[in-house]
Amino acid sequence: MSTTVIILAAGKGTRMRSNLPKVLQPLAGQPLLGHVIETAKKLQATNIITIYGHGGDLVRQTFPEEKIEWVEQTEQLGTGHAVKVTLPVLPKDGMSLILSGDVPCVQQSTLQRLIDASNPTGIGLVTLTLDDSTGYGRIVRKNNKIQAIVEHKDATEIERQIREINTGIYCVSNAKLHEWLPKLSNNNAQGEYYLTDIVAMALADGMEIASIQPEFAFEVEGVNDRVQLAALEREFQNHQAKTLMQQGVHLIDPARFDLRGHLTIGKDVRIDINVIIEGECELGDNVEIGAGCIIKNTKISANTKVQPYSVFDNAFVGESVQIGPFARLRPGAKLANEVHIGNFVEVKNSSIGFASKANHFAYLGDAQIGSGSNIGAGTITCNYDGANKHKTVIGDDVFIGTNNSLVAPVKIGNGATTGAGSTITRDVADNALAVERSQQFTKENYQRPQKVKK
Amino acid sequence: MSTTVIILAAGKGTRMRSNLPKVLQPLAGQPLLGHVIETAKKLQATNIITIYGHGGDLVRQTFPEEKIEWVEQTEQLGTGHAVKVTLPVLPKDGMSLILSGDVPCVQQSTLQRLIDASNPTGIGLVTLTLDDSTGYGRIVRKNNKIQAIVEHKDATEIERQIREINTGIYCVSNAKLHEWLPKLSNNNAQGEYYLTDIVAMALADGMEIASIQPEFAFEVEGVNDRVQLAALEREFQNHQAKTLMQQGVHLIDPARFDLRGHLTIGKDVRIDINVIIEGECELGDNVEIGAGCIIKNTKISANTKVQPYSVFDNAFVGESVQIGPFARLRPGAKLANEVHIGNFVEVKNSSIGFASKANHFAYLGDAQIGSGSNIGAGTITCNYDGANKHKTVIGDDVFIGTNNSLVAPVKIGNGATTGAGSTITRDVADNALAVERSQQFTKENYQRPQKVKK
Amino acid sequence: MSTTVIILAAGKGTRMRSNLPKVLQPLAGQPLLGHVIETAKKLQATNIITIYGHGGDLVRQTFPEEKIEWVEQTEQLGTGHAVKVTLPVLPKDGMSLILSGDVPCVQQSTLQRLIDASNPTGIGLVTLTLDDSTGYGRIVRKNNKIQAIVEHKDATEIERQIREINTGIYCVSNAKLHEWLPKLSNNNAQGEYYLTDIVAMALADGMEIASIQPEFAFEVEGVNDRVQLAALEREFQNHQAKTLMQQGVHLIDPARFDLRGHLTIGKDVRIDINVIIEGECELGDNVEIGAGCIIKNTKISANTKVQPYSVFDNAFVGESVQIGPFARLRPGAKLANEVHIGNFVEVKNSSIGFASKANHFAYLGDAQIGSGSNIGAGTITCNYDGANKHKTVIGDDVFIGTNNSLVAPVKIGNGATTGAGSTITRDVADNALAVERSQQFTKENYQRPQKVKK
Repeated sequence: MSTTVIILAAGKGTRMRSNLPKVLQPLAGQPLLGHVIETAKKLQATNIITIYGHGGDLVRQTFPEEKIEWVEQTEQLGTGHAVKVTLPVLPKDGMSLILSGDVPCVQQSTLQRLIDASNPTGIGLVTLTLDDSTGYGRIVRKNNKIQAIVEHKDATEIERQIREINTGIYCVSNAKLHEWLPKLSNNNAQGEYYLTDIVAMALADGMEIASIQPEFAFEVEGVNDRVQLAALEREFQNHQAKTLMQQGVHLIDPARFDLRGHLTIGKDVRIDINVIIEGECELGDNVEIGAGCIIKNTKISANTKVQPYSVFDNAFVGESVQIGPFARLRPGAKLANEVHIGNFVEVKNSSIGFASKANHFAYLGDAQIGSGSNIGAGTITCNYDGANKHKTVIGDDVFIGTNNSLVAPVKIGNGATTGAGSTITRDVADNALAVERSQQFTKENYQRPQKVKK
Repeated sequence: MSTTVIILAAGKGTRMRSNLPKVLQPLAGQPLLGHVIETAKKLQATNIITIYGHGGDLVRQTFPEEKIEWVEQTEQLGTGHAVKVTLPVLPKDGMSLILSGDVPCVQQSTLQRLIDASNPTGIGLVTLTLDDSTGYGRIVRKNNKIQAIVEHKDATEIERQIREINTGIYCVSNAKLHEWLPKLSNNNAQGEYYLTDIVAMALADGMEIASIQPEFAFEVEGVNDRVQLAALEREFQNHQAKTLMQQGVHLIDPARFDLRGHLTIGKDVRIDINVIIEGECELGDNVEIGAGCIIKNTKISANTKVQPYSVFDNAFVGESVQIGPFARLRPGAKLANEVHIGNFVEVKNSSIGFASKANHFAYLGDAQIGSGSNIGAGTITCNYDGANKHKTVIGDDVFIGTNNSLVAPVKIGNGATTGAGSTITRDVADNALAVERSQQFTKENYQRPQKVKK
Repeated sequence: MSTTVIILAAGKGTRMRSNLPKVLQPLAGQPLLGHVIETAKKLQATNIITIYGHGGDLVRQTFPEEKIEWVEQTEQLGTGHAVKVTLPVLPKDGMSLILSGDVPCVQQSTLQRLIDASNPTGIGLVTLTLDDSTGYGRIVRKNNKIQAIVEHKDATEIERQIREINTGIYCVSNAKLHEWLPKLSNNNAQGEYYLTDIVAMALADGMEIASIQPEFAFEVEGVNDRVQLAALEREFQNHQAKTLMQQGVHLIDPARFDLRGHLTIGKDVRIDINVIIEGECELGDNVEIGAGCIIKNTKISANTKVQPYSVFDNAFVGESVQIGPFARLRPGAKLANEVHIGNFVEVKNSSIGFASKANHFAYLGDAQIGSGSNIGAGTITCNYDGANKHKTVIGDDVFIGTNNSLVAPVKIGNGATTGAGSTITRDVADNALAVERSQQFTKENYQRPQKVKK
């Protein structure tokens, strides 16, 4: 059966005190709405209808995917009204999952269970049993069957003791949505159309209401302000961390680990405190990531050890590489196996060949370096002439001296050597020594400047 | 009515195991006593009397403010004795708030409510209801009116079940303090004069004792050892973090945020994990602070993004600046709008003009740089001749090559260029090229040193 | 009386999903088994018998200490079987503590209490009272005397309400082990030999079973998967942090402090957030360690202040040194008193004399520097010629200019000066000035490269 996912994403989120629409606030590096869309895709929904309102243009631009049907809710007249505006584009058959753009963590497996449990011609919902259900709509049951959803303010003293609540996540027959939604009334204190009323309609039709509970409570938590956002961020992060640990990752402190994207891991990966993983990353077998590293869109191959405070962005790191601390790999950095990159070294758009080394203070930009070469401390590729970028090519088994300036475009041949302190402006032939240096001049008994009295 | 604030700050704090007097131990970067004095000032107290004892000279020197009257308690004979020694300088009329120098977090609003609730010719106190009140003085009430404060050791079994306790924070008529304190007795097991006894005197005089409770329990927590200090630090930090989030700051993890001073924020400020803010800081609209940054006494203007592990101290950062990671701004660094400062760059006592860039490994000290200039990687201003500091002046639209040493005092004119690897010792005219370099010498088929067998 | 320690370390630890045997998984930087061995040594055990199995070679190689007797358990037939295989090497008299290699945190004091409480010719055990004892073996008592240990699955409804459980830590007469272990039966559902059965044997012999409880619950927690490992890591770290705070260390946030080894501290040491201490470290009086520092096998002397993000490994730091941020000391770095090491400075196998300074971007490797010298920004010792390492010797009161390359072996005499940008290849005499530099060449109205249209 075809499944539609309807996402309510029209809210302003005043309590966030932000210029950004609420559903675009990031959780784990991705907009709240993005999490819901990602889950919808995993469910292989036949179509995704998103209801937008406040900040709508920005919301739409953030998700240029073709599969989403955007429906505008021009007035905020309640959740029932929001879903009602989708009717013109809503299929006549199949079922719809109704989700909220500010309830980002609901899991695919939970929604699949909801679909499976729901009567294809009726309605099912996700409920949650809380220790303290104050404020929420209560699930009233008789002989275990749902009899009603009673809002907190309308609940009797006895009903208020009910701990099972409505989470606002539904799976409904599209045919029934077409039937029920036009009948919704706003004849209530708030003057709003409540989606909850379709449950009463279903019960009035004599239907049995299916329900399931999520595996974890945080799946159905919504975000209304920054305090809730931060709390949910940690719950989501803890969940991700636990999942990784169950897969065998050694996280030194899961409370100090942030994954903002997706991480593929090998065996015996060890991640020290305060590491941030962003985007799509892969860590091979036995990879160790030191404290405070920030790794974005990077693959790190087996047996590589990254020392603390290294920052990688869109890089590739081979096997058995030694790198850091304080190493920075910028987009296009490609390190072959057994490369050594030391402290305060920056690599950008450069490939570094097998077992080559740059152990201290170097900037390698737009460079191509062969295997077995050694780049001296303080060496810099002068890749920018103030207007254009140029390439530095360094062969195999090259020894670049300390504090060299390699003025690109320039080519250093295999086996070549450059002297310390040289500015290399012309190509160096294979196996040649190139030095740019003056005579060392000496003045005996030199009198240094004296401290000026002020 | 005039309000005096009396602060008890004579305790030694043996359990801190420190050479520093307890009230000088820092919480959120400020001495415990400093927090209490700051709150007293916010209350616009007409005078602040601080009772010092252990380490008194150091305590007094730490707060050179004129408004504080320092009264020495030469012997530690109890809290009643401590307040008694203030009588010679205590006004005859008005009221006094009696606070403790080691209870740093009491809020202005709580104290204002205490003042408002207290009978100006009587006494009011702050109480707290705890789940477990073991060890504390209990508030005995009858018909809701305070009848007595009973110390734990003197309490009956029934009284010990009372969960409302005395916090030791009072608001008392100064006239009554002059009347009651001389009557205090040390006729008890400890041989001490207890301030609590004035409550009994008030009750004996037929007075009604006002009381209020603090908004948060941590406001009345005292600090006796390092474990308590660390716990209170986190409670205070969490409170600050929550307040910032309610103002709209996006804190990725409030448990990993430290504010040691005051932070003024614009809209949509985002602060990643493990950031420390010290002193007086201001972050403009849309400012993003990357993980691990340490920002002290610095203003960062709107739309600036600070990448991780940047350390700023007494700097100014303009709008839409790109900076970091691993950037260091030292005192006197001033970055104009749209400046780029990259990794491993240090700026001290220097102004950098609009849209100028120093993207890699540079030390800019005592420099003045115009707009649109580019400072090459590895370039260093030689501002120190071993005895004196000198200034480097760089104009607009200048291109400083890689690995330059700019020997100050030196001036590089507008539009000028310097060659890579140059040591610039003489001024460079507008639009001129300056190069300090030898010929590149080549030796074919150079034989590199061989590994010495050991 | 002589005490043997028997450590069960044969388990595979499948749930860790690791190639490493479970007892080699690290907690606080040390293998689980290493913690138990360390505790055994503190108890001055006359011999330590470790039963290995899975990954046995690796386990044995990890602990090359002579004192350990390794006994292989070739089949995993239960805890009783594991101890039974030690009988050939187990002394006939004295007592044995039976510990688990995956229960790493049991304290020496707890075990000493167990030894003291246990009948030398009988058996004693460590029990623990839990809020929820589900799943554990219950301690059944009558008139406070232990009557039986009943496994959860065998327990009656009433026995399941017992909250006191067996921790699996025993102290047993060796004579009795020789008597009881051969009698163990595997006539049970699992077909395993249970060590617990010796308690029944002791009771059958009419013995009274001694028991004690650990001071902290985490002492008896075992590790079966990564989630438990991470949880125990934090419990152990919190315990260490608390101990240090009680000794007087000012930890800004004990939840963000990691000690992986041993730390000796002076008075008034302050440690900011996210510091990691590894190996054997010592911090003198008034030492301050800034946020994010990683200190390994290093002694830091009194009054030294380490600024944030400094990484030290096998170094020595004198008194009143100023260092960091972003300083790196590698093995063999020795800083005398009052040295200044600034940002992005790396020191390896070098001694730096009294009050000498290297404040920015320097690499000092294999160098010996006298007192009162100043190393310019960007200066690098060229200690490696591509094949061998050479030494740089710098005297007292030397001024090394900016961006120098000091080509080792080279010696700079006392009071000497080098010019900015120099590559120094020959020795410099005392008080001499050495400069390697060309004339500064100027070209007026230079036309810089233009941006190439693409």
